[in-house]
Amino acid sequence: MSRSFLPISGFELPRFAGVPTFMRLPHLELGEPDISEVSIGFVGVPWDGGTTNRPGARHGPRALRDASTMIRQVHPVSGLNPFEAVNCADLGDVAVNPADVMDTLQRVTSVYQKVIAAGVRPFTAGGDHLVSLPVLRAVAKDKPLGMIHFDAHTDFYNSYFGGYKYTHGTPFRRAVEEGLLDPKKVVQIGIRGTGYDTEDIDFALANGVRLVRIEELFKRGVEDVMAEARDIVGQDAIYVSFDIDGIDPSFAPGTGTPEIGGFNTFEAQQLCRGLSGLNIAACDLVEVSPPFDPSGMTAWVGVSIMFELLCPLAESVAASNS
Amino acid sequence: MSRSFLPISGFELPRFAGVPTFMRLPHLELGEPDISEVSIGFVGVPWDGGTTNRPGARHGPRALRDASTMIRQVHPVSGLNPFEAVNCADLGDVAVNPADVMDTLQRVTSVYQKVIAAGVRPFTAGGDHLVSLPVLRAVAKDKPLGMIHFDAHTDFYNSYFGGYKYTHGTPFRRAVEEGLLDPKKVVQIGIRGTGYDTEDIDFALANGVRLVRIEELFKRGVEDVMAEARDIVGQDAIYVSFDIDGIDPSFAPGTGTPEIGGFNTFEAQQLCRGLSGLNIAACDLVEVSPPFDPSGMTAWVGVSIMFELLCPLAESVAASNS
Amino acid sequence: MSRSFLPISGFELPRFAGVPTFMRLPHLELGEPDISEVSIGFVGVPWDGGTTNRPGARHGPRALRDASTMIRQVHPVSGLNPFEAVNCADLGDVAVNPADVMDTLQRVTSVYQKVIAAGVRPFTAGGDHLVSLPVLRAVAKDKPLGMIHFDAHTDFYNSYFGGYKYTHGTPFRRAVEEGLLDPKKVVQIGIRGTGYDTEDIDFALANGVRLVRIEELFKRGVEDVMAEARDIVGQDAIYVSFDIDGIDPSFAPGTGTPEIGGFNTFEAQQLCRGLSGLNIAACDLVEVSPPFDPSGMTAWVGVSIMFELLCPLAESVAASNS
Amino acid sequence: MSRSFLPISGFELPRFAGVPTFMRLPHLELGEPDISEVSIGFVGVPWDGGTTNRPGARHGPRALRDASTMIRQVHPVSGLNPFEAVNCADLGDVAVNPADVMDTLQRVTSVYQKVIAAGVRPFTAGGDHLVSLPVLRAVAKDKPLGMIHFDAHTDFYNSYFGGYKYTHGTPFRRAVEEGLLDPKKVVQIGIRGTGYDTEDIDFALANGVRLVRIEELFKRGVEDVMAEARDIVGQDAIYVSFDIDGIDPSFAPGTGTPEIGGFNTFEAQQLCRGLSGLNIAACDLVEVSPPFDPSGMTAWVGVSIMFELLCPLAESVAASNS
Amino acid sequence: MSRSFLPISGFELPRFAGVPTFMRLPHLELGEPDISEVSIGFVGVPWDGGTTNRPGARHGPRALRDASTMIRQVHPVSGLNPFEAVNCADLGDVAVNPADVMDTLQRVTSVYQKVIAAGVRPFTAGGDHLVSLPVLRAVAKDKPLGMIHFDAHTDFYNSYFGGYKYTHGTPFRRAVEEGLLDPKKVVQIGIRGTGYDTEDIDFALANGVRLVRIEELFKRGVEDVMAEARDIVGQDAIYVSFDIDGIDPSFAPGTGTPEIGGFNTFEAQQLCRGLSGLNIAACDLVEVSPPFDPSGMTAWVGVSIMFELLCPLAESVAASNS
Amino acid sequence: MSRSFLPISGFELPRFAGVPTFMRLPHLELGEPDISEVSIGFVGVPWDGGTTNRPGARHGPRALRDASTMIRQVHPVSGLNPFEAVNCADLGDVAVNPADVMDTLQRVTSVYQKVIAAGVRPFTAGGDHLVSLPVLRAVAKDKPLGMIHFDAHTDFYNSYFGGYKYTHGTPFRRAVEEGLLDPKKVVQIGIRGTGYDTEDIDFALANGVRLVRIEELFKRGVEDVMAEARDIVGQDAIYVSFDIDGIDPSFAPGTGTPEIGGFNTFEAQQLCRGLSGLNIAACDLVEVSPPFDPSGMTAWVGVSIMFELLCPLAESVAASNS
Repeated sequence: MSRSFLPISGFELPRFAGVPTFMRLPHLELGEPDISEVSIGFVGVPWDGGTTNRPGARHGPRALRDASTMIRQVHPVSGLNPFEAVNCADLGDVAVNPADVMDTLQRVTSVYQKVIAAGVRPFTAGGDHLVSLPVLRAVAKDKPLGMIHFDAHTDFYNSYFGGYKYTHGTPFRRAVEEGLLDPKKVVQIGIRGTGYDTEDIDFALANGVRLVRIEELFKRGVEDVMAEARDIVGQDAIYVSFDIDGIDPSFAPGTGTPEIGGFNTFEAQQLCRGLSGLNIAACDLVEVSPPFDPSGMTAWVGVSIMFELLCPLAESVAASNS
Repeated sequence: MSRSFLPISGFELPRFAGVPTFMRLPHLELGEPDISEVSIGFVGVPWDGGTTNRPGARHGPRALRDASTMIRQVHPVSGLNPFEAVNCADLGDVAVNPADVMDTLQRVTSVYQKVIAAGVRPFTAGGDHLVSLPVLRAVAKDKPLGMIHFDAHTDFYNSYFGGYKYTHGTPFRRAVEEGLLDPKKVVQIGIRGTGYDTEDIDFALANGVRLVRIEELFKRGVEDVMAEARDIVGQDAIYVSFDIDGIDPSFAPGTGTPEIGGFNTFEAQQLCRGLSGLNIAACDLVEVSPPFDPSGMTAWVGVSIMFELLCPLAESVAASNS
Repeated sequence: MSRSFLPISGFELPRFAGVPTFMRLPHLELGEPDISEVSIGFVGVPWDGGTTNRPGARHGPRALRDASTMIRQVHPVSGLNPFEAVNCADLGDVAVNPADVMDTLQRVTSVYQKVIAAGVRPFTAGGDHLVSLPVLRAVAKDKPLGMIHFDAHTDFYNSYFGGYKYTHGTPFRRAVEEGLLDPKKVVQIGIRGTGYDTEDIDFALANGVRLVRIEELFKRGVEDVMAEARDIVGQDAIYVSFDIDGIDPSFAPGTGTPEIGGFNTFEAQQLCRGLSGLNIAACDLVEVSPPFDPSGMTAWVGVSIMFELLCPLAESVAASNS
Repeated sequence: MSRSFLPISGFELPRFAGVPTFMRLPHLELGEPDISEVSIGFVGVPWDGGTTNRPGARHGPRALRDASTMIRQVHPVSGLNPFEAVNCADLGDVAVNPADVMDTLQRVTSVYQKVIAAGVRPFTAGGDHLVSLPVLRAVAKDKPLGMIHFDAHTDFYNSYFGGYKYTHGTPFRRAVEEGLLDPKKVVQIGIRGTGYDTEDIDFALANGVRLVRIEELFKRGVEDVMAEARDIVGQDAIYVSFDIDGIDPSFAPGTGTPEIGGFNTFEAQQLCRGLSGLNIAACDLVEVSPPFDPSGMTAWVGVSIMFELLCPLAESVAASNS
Repeated sequence: MSRSFLPISGFELPRFAGVPTFMRLPHLELGEPDISEVSIGFVGVPWDGGTTNRPGARHGPRALRDASTMIRQVHPVSGLNPFEAVNCADLGDVAVNPADVMDTLQRVTSVYQKVIAAGVRPFTAGGDHLVSLPVLRAVAKDKPLGMIHFDAHTDFYNSYFGGYKYTHGTPFRRAVEEGLLDPKKVVQIGIRGTGYDTEDIDFALANGVRLVRIEELFKRGVEDVMAEARDIVGQDAIYVSFDIDGIDPSFAPGTGTPEIGGFNTFEAQQLCRGLSGLNIAACDLVEVSPPFDPSGMTAWVGVSIMFELLCPLAESVAASNS
Repeated sequence: MSRSFLPISGFELPRFAGVPTFMRLPHLELGEPDISEVSIGFVGVPWDGGTTNRPGARHGPRALRDASTMIRQVHPVSGLNPFEAVNCADLGDVAVNPADVMDTLQRVTSVYQKVIAAGVRPFTAGGDHLVSLPVLRAVAKDKPLGMIHFDAHTDFYNSYFGGYKYTHGTPFRRAVEEGLLDPKKVVQIGIRGTGYDTEDIDFALANGVRLVRIEELFKRGVEDVMAEARDIVGQDAIYVSFDIDGIDPSFAPGTGTPEIGGFNTFEAQQLCRGLSGLNIAACDLVEVSPPFDPSGMTAWVGVSIMFELLCPLAESVAASNS
């Protein structure tokens, strides 16, 4: 009989107990044979080498795993139990190199190539936003993906400090340049905050990115914006990237580059629920920085959003299986 | 001349000064003769023996008393001074047994029987939500009460860990079973969060409980929901139970089982104001856990809500006196 | 060639680096000749001698300067770069006397008289709200100003503790009495919280102050309220005073007298944007208390609001220059 | 039968429960008749109006009362139960004026005159160190006292900011000038830290104060230094003043003016135990500043030292009674 | 080839990365066949049901696992690599019942019986000190053990609250009564703090326990005291119990019942090194309470001590194997 | 008349006020002509790119400047006022590149070459310990320096993660290889903690480094060890490097790689005082990581040590001038 891929229940072991894996799922190494039964794999990328402001996102996966053991299995509105719908597992963390950006980019891509080769859709827990780039290099190696991107920032800057090209402000510029993203199928939601200049926004607009500022989101409402987003990406495979700083810092203070005036956690949940029915190739949740989170609430917000994202991802897997 | 039951004014003694009683009221023991003049008594139940997740609610009454000395006397909208309307006092804490659940349940009920016998309506400061059960055993000993219940959770689970029946997830299941609550006059507002299963909700719905999920609350608005709640409970005596985790954890992080996406403190105030005119037998505010509240803001939110609840409770007392 | 008044860019020096001046502007002493080129001067008043509740606002200017180095130059909606529009500088802190209220009031006024004499419009970083009084004594010495005032409290109390007249609850009572403010052109927005009595509100209403409680603000919306506020003050010179406790304490816990149920930071931004086109003589942002701000988020909210206020202030300067 | 003056036992009510008075003693007002039975009265002076650096000591009495409920009754080494030896009570807090130094000095002295008149020896919980001055004005009104003073600072400065004479750096200069202390019977232990100049030390030495720097304390050891201190003060009535910043800030970070390299808490206990047999008229423990004490440990250290000081104070009372 | 029992190296995966098991060891379930190769098993008991004061020790195992990934393999003084000396593993947490003391005591004993039956020596991470009792019921089921016990408290009280016998203040009273400990071979080191009475100490002394108060420890020095302790226990099998509150709370604030004046971490290390050569059947480290540990340092101290204890335990295993 | 290089006095401007420069000294840019009058320059290197464990040292210079305004001018034991002895200034922070190690190493060296060329002795505030390497490349470019190094770690590892050579565990290995340090004149004091292996220690010993473990330090005492250290380095020019983690983490928790059992702050002060009379070319204080320092005490310890180091450095400058 094959092993169970259900999380350990809180009725069996209290939720604060046990070795903390993502969502209390089994921890599998990529090389284990059981990997062939896994459809969705949580992978941590404990790295903040691209952070130009306050560091600490390298501690994100640890804190997210810790908080995740408080998540139960059934979605309160849809009633979906994603863990029953598809097999999920914790695939551990990538062995990043804290002191070397280029080496780490390669290490991440290399691990994700194996994840993809195993037929697993990866759900990444960052790490800073630069980690999306090496993930995309593995996930989108065959053709550009669309993307729905929740964030306060576009992350479309070109460079930093005299031309340095790899920071957490530049991943999607690189991804577009490398053909990993189709900018005409990219929707960014929640953009706000002061700017160095408008170079990032100019690039986005010039390339056909649909950029929804926070003011527009609040004016039109989540439902309307997500309907448009779904229209834009259609049924093509997409990447979903959720930067925790898209949420207002009152709800998620533990992040490197907070911007006030963001959407709240209820709105974040509705945004995620608006992904239902889409063809999701991979997800990430990034920029949780525990050292700036004295109450620990940011990690809890983070895993609560991860559960919301997991549901449409699991639906998408299930749909492609049927 | 009888003693004063007015709080010490901030013009007499700075608000951060003095021995902290609830709302700066006089501290009376149940046996003192002056108790006969008291209409509303604040009672602390410093206990978290029913907590299956993060503990610390045993420190709630201490932190709430501390924060409560910042409360002034006049309601900003109604202009009511509840302390002038009826005599209020701090009746101290129940001598709970931190290491024995069943012993504590009896100790709490025993104290509340004396409170009720003295003609005092109790306002409980928890402690975890299991404390509502022994309180109800005293308050509802003659006939079942209706209840308006603000919370993220139904607390209608049957058991835990192989049948253990007394935790902070089960008090209202027991209360319905014991005939302390009339489920057809129970309204629950703010329900959300992932579930172990739907057993609690099935029980609630099967017994006629009106369960208002957070999505419905936000869609219809506070006023509409509270109008319906008032209709449901009518003029029968009710219990009001406010679990601080009903409020979004951004506003009240110091609690054991936070769920994101809750109502905010302004909405919480409006919910409480919607209780005006009801026949309130007793109130509680539970699940404030100071060890998880580095900024101390949760206790402040807690006592601010206690003041909002005190106003309709005092009106209810005054109405029954006239 | 004259010196540069542009902030140091994050592309030149990382935003967490360097000696922290307000907004990374040059630090000028009032006596330096370059002062003649400055239009807007940030001044810290590190003082909480008027605080009757929780202290710590004396540490506000330090924390605000620290957080302010994360502010970039371009406004995300209007596209304005206020630092290019007008010359701004950090004029340092007033040398307050921590243990003597009356001495400090004189020291503050004396410094601000020099600021005004130098043709600089001051942007004050408090400090507790009593600092607005000595600032107004310098700024409004010729004729009474109008005021748009964002706060949870009216600060119109008469006295405290047997007639003591100078606390952070009384500055605007004094200012009206001294003819520094024209009460018919004073608008207060966000008022809420329990009251000692209604003496402050009675004074405000009797003198023609327009007092917008939080309930009215939420009912009518920011745009409508700000339109009325602009009508009331017209094109007369006004003072803008922003008490951080106007914002809900979930967003800004680090303050001495929090009141739940306030407006959020997005609404705060819209309120500030509603000042566009007004004739602003001076601004302050007060009551940030770092010791009560374990996550540091309150200072970040504070400087983010300072940037929002700076934009209409800079526009006002530019308009008067043209 | 007379009332009990024993603390509430932890076997009756858990130590975290109940309205927190000092040491769980009864709370008496000065006017109550039972006051005549009290020998030692704890008085809070919640005030930091003399603080020239980081404020917050106004919150000291509240935090100390809170922590004090963890103190049990029996001294671990001597076996003394001071509460059985003499009647102790909590006399509440002085109604200080947070915004007026001179008014507060008079208010404190006035309350302490009543304490002294009632035959009660006061144990003061500060507040900043300036509170020792108005206390001494009441306690030493008949003749100068000796003093044993544990502190990192001499508090013998003359003035501050152009001659201002009343700060927490000047109380003992004033006390010597006013004839409240006999400098030849003053011993200061633990002095260290950088200096503005040597004016305070010059004054101390010129007046015959015995100043024991931390280096001397560590070299000679606690026992030897305390033997000398006992010789110096003899059997004359003394004041004992313990500034929490005498203890190394690692053990007591929550204070306004920390100095590294201090004595540890074990040494602090031994210093207090060295007071045994002296004629102690009054004690204070000052400068606990809860806003700078995230772990709450400073208040715990503070009350633990208060218990150590209470023991020789109770012995002194008992000796004078026999 | 058999699996590796070496911790994951920091050169392979950064120390902050990966699913956190104790010391980065493999996580084995008791039923797995590989268990036969394990000599020392780390077991968490995430439970604070016996805590009569501040709770939170249920979160201890999680925090200790988290911190333990910073431990490297080689002892700095002895050069021992305990993981090379004997096979160690993480056996997970016991499935405790947070709301039922008696049920949990049985659950713990039942798990430890399996551990013992598997030939594994258990190293327990608490949890509060009551967990030592059910562990001893498994470990000492054949004959009474000696014990070296580092603590501020004797934990020899008889009962609490009218006879309740199972709290974290009573485990060793029960253990002596049940014949699990030979009191003549019990040494307690670090005892201090105020007492309810002397009942615990009377019991200890009457039964021949060697109780070393902190004053004696500091006077004689660690080496001398440990020499005596080794003499007392000889080569009989012993239990080593380390309550983190034995260490001064400045070094380990995150605990439920801190007592000032304790030994420091260097002394704690020397105490552990003094266990070398003894016949250690099992170890525990208890009372780490993360909610009271804002800097996280207590968990780090805890695992650093666990490593120090692991070394003599591993030596003891190795000696018995040879 | 030349400008003043004295710190702003606390009698002029309260110590919590003003733009925070190191020690309240004037802030000079390297290019300003006044630089020629400066003998000692404080330079921040806000960078943690070499950190393989917990990051945050990039925020060190900011926090150290903030805390440094509490330092007064006169040394309590020697009476030295170093600011009167020699001209000191704050030279600002190096414009590091947060995301590029090799670029940053060059940027640091380049700035320090200018500092050296200006005849200024640099006092560096880190930053992680890798910053010592590029500093040494400028300071020791002519001949190898001796070094007295206070630390828990040797920082003599060769590489990390498959040969990566530039981390905060390797700077002094590189410095010896590059001929910047003469290992026979290197003394390391405070070494402790578990090891990956003994490769670092083997290198140190093989090259003649004098390594004083913490056990030896405590056994022999500070005075004896420092006498030997002074003998070893003689009157040759030395570098003094103080890693804050040399101090026990109870005193300095805010650091990336804490090791328990370290020396305390009093011992740290004595160690620094033992440098008196040596020929000091440059100093650094590194590894203060504010995000891990909730009480802010680590930064205060850091600047207190910086003042202690400044004194012998100033003496050394003065001696070379005379």
